[in-house]
Amino acid sequence: MKEVPVGVSARHIHLSSEHIGILFGAGYVLNIMKPLSQPGQFAAEETVAVVGPKGKFDKVRILGPARNSSQLEISRTDAFGLGVNPPVRESGNIAGTPGIKVIGPAGEVELKEGVIVAARHIHFHTSDAEKWSIADKQKLKVRLNGERPLIFEDVIARISDQFALDMHIDTDEANAAGVKTGDIAVIVDVL
Amino acid sequence: MKEVPVGVSARHIHLSSEHIGILFGAGYVLNIMKPLSQPGQFAAEETVAVVGPKGKFDKVRILGPARNSSQLEISRTDAFGLGVNPPVRESGNIAGTPGIKVIGPAGEVELKEGVIVAARHIHFHTSDAEKWSIADKQKLKVRLNGERPLIFEDVIARISDQFALDMHIDTDEANAAGVKTGDIAVIVDVL
Repeated sequence: MKEVPVGVSARHIHLSSEHIGILFGAGYVLNIMKPLSQPGQFAAEETVAVVGPKGKFDKVRILGPARNSSQLEISRTDAFGLGVNPPVRESGNIAGTPGIKVIGPAGEVELKEGVIVAARHIHFHTSDAEKWSIADKQKLKVRLNGERPLIFEDVIARISDQFALDMHIDTDEANAAGVKTGDIAVIVDVL
Repeated sequence: MKEVPVGVSARHIHLSSEHIGILFGAGYVLNIMKPLSQPGQFAAEETVAVVGPKGKFDKVRILGPARNSSQLEISRTDAFGLGVNPPVRESGNIAGTPGIKVIGPAGEVELKEGVIVAARHIHFHTSDAEKWSIADKQKLKVRLNGERPLIFEDVIARISDQFALDMHIDTDEANAAGVKTGDIAVIVDVL
């Protein structure tokens, strides 16, 4: 069985160095609260507020390190709450997505784009992908046997020797299936 | 193809006549805002507030007519917001479920039980069920081909000559699949 641990992503934001400087002050360096499953990635101690046309979230966790472009990842439920209509996208693919206002302790930034609902995906270390004959960008069919069993289609494979095996879904997907971080997903088909 | 229209249930409450009297005043009769897909059921003009240990929802729609027992149906996301931990249950099966405080314009009620996450199900008119050879309480496997395709297992068949064909899912399930009321689900297997 091709078993993969599940990681549930709550709403979070990635920030560029420039935006960290505006939101927290010039030269500010994020503090590591805890490392994430992917090597080098971390949840920062710092949070920001995000404000949309219909609503606001006061404490959105920043994930580090800094990226080239700022990106807010939210669930569809969150999107209705904020009053924005982001597409489902792979991380980093933000062209044409909605913007949002971000507020930090030292200033605020009006993102021109960068709000997405993250497309579900599995990170594979190169060795896992070879063992299971899975190719980068391949779409997979994955079963989550939670309180309410669901089969996810179109789960994108992402392969790197910098990745650790982990299936990333958002809170809507986790709640619909009744699963939590650390539960086990099973790849049932390679599409 | 066994095609079924989808109905997305936002959080809502069913109230007993006794509780309608306490919340809105003795002898109060709910006003119909709009009929629902199931014959005789309606969304009322009236709303109530519900208050849990961690949060509150100010305007929870009442669905009528009055029932024998009051019952609050919420998504898992809503449950985290309120700070309650309801089980996934079929409507009406509320023994041992958490309670909640309900506030109306004329008074408040502390429900001793009745908070559930509604188990996904399909209402079949007897004629639909006969045509497709589906039995009452049978579990079905159903595909929702939304923005993020999902296959739902353990979808419960409910059959009556009082029912109209309709698949009921909650907002977490709808958002995870990227579907809305009126979209079409397809029954892919009878389990």
